[in-house]
Amino acid sequence: MLVSALLTSLGINSGLCVLFFILYSILRNQPSNYEVYVPRLLVEGNSKRRSHFNLERLIPSTGWIKRAWKLSEEDILSSSGLDAVVFMRVITFSLRVFSFAGIIGVFVLLPVNCMGTQLHEIDFEDLSNNSLDVFTISNVNSGSKWLWIHFSAVYILTIFVCYLLYHNEAKTLYKRLLHLRSEPSQHKYIRIGFFGQKVDLVDHYEKKLEDIEQNLRLEQSDLSLADETRAAFVSFKSRYGAAIAFHIQQSINPIQWITELAPEPDDVYWPFFSSSFMRRWMSKLVVVVACILLTILFLIPVVVVQGLTNLSQLEIWFPFLKSILTITFVSQVITGYLPSLILQLFLKIVPPIMEFLSSIQGYISHSDIEKSACNKVLWFTIWNIFFATVFSGSVLYLVNIFLEPKDIPAKLAVAVPAQASFFIAYVVTSGWTSTASELCRIIPLIYSLVTRFCKSTDELEVPSLPYHRDIPRILFFALLGITYFFLAPLILPFLLMYLCLAYIIFSNQFKNVYMPKYETAGKFWPIVHNSMIFSLVLMHAISIGIFTLKKLSIASTLVFPLPVLTLLFNEYCRKRFLPIFIAYPAEVLMKKDKEEANDPAMAEFFDKLVTAYQDPALLPIRYSVNSNSLNSPLISSADV
Amino acid sequence: MLVSALLTSLGINSGLCVLFFILYSILRNQPSNYEVYVPRLLVEGNSKRRSHFNLERLIPSTGWIKRAWKLSEEDILSSSGLDAVVFMRVITFSLRVFSFAGIIGVFVLLPVNCMGTQLHEIDFEDLSNNSLDVFTISNVNSGSKWLWIHFSAVYILTIFVCYLLYHNEAKTLYKRLLHLRSEPSQHKYIRIGFFGQKVDLVDHYEKKLEDIEQNLRLEQSDLSLADETRAAFVSFKSRYGAAIAFHIQQSINPIQWITELAPEPDDVYWPFFSSSFMRRWMSKLVVVVACILLTILFLIPVVVVQGLTNLSQLEIWFPFLKSILTITFVSQVITGYLPSLILQLFLKIVPPIMEFLSSIQGYISHSDIEKSACNKVLWFTIWNIFFATVFSGSVLYLVNIFLEPKDIPAKLAVAVPAQASFFIAYVVTSGWTSTASELCRIIPLIYSLVTRFCKSTDELEVPSLPYHRDIPRILFFALLGITYFFLAPLILPFLLMYLCLAYIIFSNQFKNVYMPKYETAGKFWPIVHNSMIFSLVLMHAISIGIFTLKKLSIASTLVFPLPVLTLLFNEYCRKRFLPIFIAYPAEVLMKKDKEEANDPAMAEFFDKLVTAYQDPALLPIRYSVNSNSLNSPLISSADV
Repeated sequence: MLVSALLTSLGINSGLCVLFFILYSILRNQPSNYEVYVPRLLVEGNSKRRSHFNLERLIPSTGWIKRAWKLSEEDILSSSGLDAVVFMRVITFSLRVFSFAGIIGVFVLLPVNCMGTQLHEIDFEDLSNNSLDVFTISNVNSGSKWLWIHFSAVYILTIFVCYLLYHNEAKTLYKRLLHLRSEPSQHKYIRIGFFGQKVDLVDHYEKKLEDIEQNLRLEQSDLSLADETRAAFVSFKSRYGAAIAFHIQQSINPIQWITELAPEPDDVYWPFFSSSFMRRWMSKLVVVVACILLTILFLIPVVVVQGLTNLSQLEIWFPFLKSILTITFVSQVITGYLPSLILQLFLKIVPPIMEFLSSIQGYISHSDIEKSACNKVLWFTIWNIFFATVFSGSVLYLVNIFLEPKDIPAKLAVAVPAQASFFIAYVVTSGWTSTASELCRIIPLIYSLVTRFCKSTDELEVPSLPYHRDIPRILFFALLGITYFFLAPLILPFLLMYLCLAYIIFSNQFKNVYMPKYETAGKFWPIVHNSMIFSLVLMHAISIGIFTLKKLSIASTLVFPLPVLTLLFNEYCRKRFLPIFIAYPAEVLMKKDKEEANDPAMAEFFDKLVTAYQDPALLPIRYSVNSNSLNSPLISSADV
Repeated sequence: MLVSALLTSLGINSGLCVLFFILYSILRNQPSNYEVYVPRLLVEGNSKRRSHFNLERLIPSTGWIKRAWKLSEEDILSSSGLDAVVFMRVITFSLRVFSFAGIIGVFVLLPVNCMGTQLHEIDFEDLSNNSLDVFTISNVNSGSKWLWIHFSAVYILTIFVCYLLYHNEAKTLYKRLLHLRSEPSQHKYIRIGFFGQKVDLVDHYEKKLEDIEQNLRLEQSDLSLADETRAAFVSFKSRYGAAIAFHIQQSINPIQWITELAPEPDDVYWPFFSSSFMRRWMSKLVVVVACILLTILFLIPVVVVQGLTNLSQLEIWFPFLKSILTITFVSQVITGYLPSLILQLFLKIVPPIMEFLSSIQGYISHSDIEKSACNKVLWFTIWNIFFATVFSGSVLYLVNIFLEPKDIPAKLAVAVPAQASFFIAYVVTSGWTSTASELCRIIPLIYSLVTRFCKSTDELEVPSLPYHRDIPRILFFALLGITYFFLAPLILPFLLMYLCLAYIIFSNQFKNVYMPKYETAGKFWPIVHNSMIFSLVLMHAISIGIFTLKKLSIASTLVFPLPVLTLLFNEYCRKRFLPIFIAYPAEVLMKKDKEEANDPAMAEFFDKLVTAYQDPALLPIRYSVNSNSLNSPLISSADV
């Protein structure tokens, strides 16, 4: 790709971003759009704007940008819960990493790359017709001593990312998690589902676990004729008792009775509630196979799209377009912008598909489904965008590469730098414009405009952010940033711009639009951690290949300890930090139990417990009504 | 290798076996050798033989063979514990598998192989100069329909082994484990070691876990100045309480306090008792690296040994031997017998090395060390004997093969059948003779003869069977049997002979010689299970390669589902059976707790508990005295 093509793409996307910002600044001032842009404020009753028409409304207001930028983590935590904090942390984490990497990349690596003479001299007078390759490591002469700077940069970035993961991020996040978990705001009580055969009992009397278990087994045999359901929620007087039942294998046959921590009432996903272990295991296997097939077969449209970046290919396919394609602007649009746009549209349908697959995988809570979908989308993206673009070959070729692990570094070293300009364009298109369009919420806006005239007293539904769509996207950009950091540092300013945009926009949306329906209690962070470690190891693999290719085999050998140390660091973090994401330690549980022992509100809580979990099939009419909107019905119409 | 060379090896080893059996039958009748051959009976006071000289003694007695063959599992269980039962199960399991495989192999596959004409016609008049290759699958014509018989055999054996693993073996073993674990004979109580910082407390009062924990923490802060040790045994009034403390993460920092089930007093390995998590983790990492290095570097002597099987190579190295090597008998000894003998001697030092490595890995019980050493020796053997022999290349070549996983089946298909005759000789040498020499206990016999005249009243020490030496050997033979089953079924009769020998000899040794020092409670079985699954998948990989090589690619494709299904079966077994090998379920624990609640012997047990665990450093003189021999001092001299 030429500099001019990149500039075209940059121009179009910057224009679109500015347009979206202006549009949003105007549209959000219109009371008729409050349902789309500030549903959360409406529901909470914080929207106090006057409803009469005013010319002021048409003047774009920019105060929201400042407010969004200044939103503190505490505000997000109290208003949107821990998952939103983790989400914003992913962005701030990436911001720190790429600010640091950006300084090294732009001020050290970029000049070194440009000084090289491997490709050809740069013609500064005709910069726009230069290939972007002169800014990449490909331009550094083979065997040059300058490559040691790249080598040092790889080491420095790895140490910096690991340091941030461990000290700044993991430890403070960990403390926050523990703090929250010892004083949970929402998680009032832990509940346990016994998944076994013919258990039909909800028991919440003040008994020791042993007695409850004995009762369960007695009633189990009594009820064996009734055969109503094979699962139940069992509540315990103490959190500690519930933790015991969760951690210890109950029955002799380990797959007969399965205990799990019960999700929050809003979070329960009923279809697999009473499924047996075997059915859930089989569902999981089927979904895993389906997921792998989808991930691999999806490549076909992607490869077709990649073909579009090649103008001569296009001219062969569609000869009648030849005259149009010769216009400079059109050709630049096609090579610089269209491919990533089409890819983007294809990818839009992936998160819903993955969420559907996760939902039939046997999980009993929406939060588990979303977490699993997040993982699926992440690996799907890495495989189908990163590897498919880099190698741009057939599915078989791609699979073959991974069956010969020894040659991966060499193949990556050849293929990855060649795609630098595509990924810069991808960051600009997919990152900038998609995120800015998130601000305008175009589809909900259209939906709102259409339905406004059909029905007037519909209840307002506050949406929740689909984490499984947005977390993998940010993580994928982080992967691009880390892998291209020493290859083509030109990508870093674009990434930083994207991260700033994302920070402002998502802060704003958390404040005004989204409201959490359920909590995973920070369980997205381990996915983030794993993704960062994977990115680092991928960068090491590429650097080994690059240094071999550039005939600096000492450097290539000296990089070897780096992935080993990174993986050891990861292993240590798994032991040190992962347990807190899975279950509460005894120390925290007992502290909380003691605090609650004398709490008068507990009696009321236990009364509520009996009716807290109700299968939606048993509820008569309220089935489709959103529980969040029950407390505050339609303040919007009263206010407007 | 020619048939004649194999026959020579067979003759020598059969002779040695008979010699060992006769020698043993005579030597065991001599009262002076009782310490070597029946130390267990002596200690138990069951040896009632007359001591005066008798000519009868010099006549070999064969009654022991019959008695050993008839020894039931119940006898072994009551006398030598669950580990011995698992050990004998490995032998009987293999016996069943290879009886079944042997019938198919010898009566179906062998005739099919001989009928082929791929290599050359068999000259039945000069059979001894024929190559053994005519009995292998190499002799079947490419693309022949007869290969479908081999294909079916692969499927049938896989199903049979999985069925045995699941139904006959795993399930009955599982029931026995559960039965034993609900009524343990030795495991009187579960104990917990808290590994953390500055814990110094042995507390066994009848308190709830919560209180104990609180006390621990209080005393922890009180004792922080004393700083005596960082670990302690904590006992609980109920098994259930101990299980709770074991399963739930105690402190907020998961690596600060580590709870483990305490080993039996005899089983404690003190050096790592008070080590911190980090030190144990680091030790583990270092040992894993050392182990991998040892496994890879060990190949060098093995490759030298492999060179010896090649007569012409030998003549080049040692030209002066030329005249001797031309003698038929000498050359047959060298090609058929010497290589496996030298390899055997090299391998003798591996189990002690692996045991040493495991002992510095951070385990706190001898049984864990032995289990870990068993695993290390198994993978060492598979890598250094199977893969090194099959590919007989340099270390780098061998490592390269595993870095290109796609080509493994093709390379195995070429290399594995070529080594059939070596492995038949290996079974005969290493299997038959080593096992028979185990019967004679030559080294202890020599040691006894030497020391008999030096010191007279030394206390008798009953040895325990080194499972980490013998289990990997049997598992390796099972791997050979499974992989060569359809390639060279001629190996199966030799294997069956070996297994029968092993059954008789180890039954006899368990009865007369070995006495368990500690119990792993059947934890060797998961190693056996994994090894069997690995053997099956290896067989599938070879068969895929073979069918491709033999131009029957449909069969090669149809084998593909088999490894996938086998691994799924393994995954199911891990969920269904593995938990019982790790911890007791709540159901069993509580049943046992209730039974013991009214047991008057409990008070006495708690009294003993205080002194049960004592660091040997604190014991004044008894340090070197074996605890087993304390109860019955020197009955031997009184009886003889």
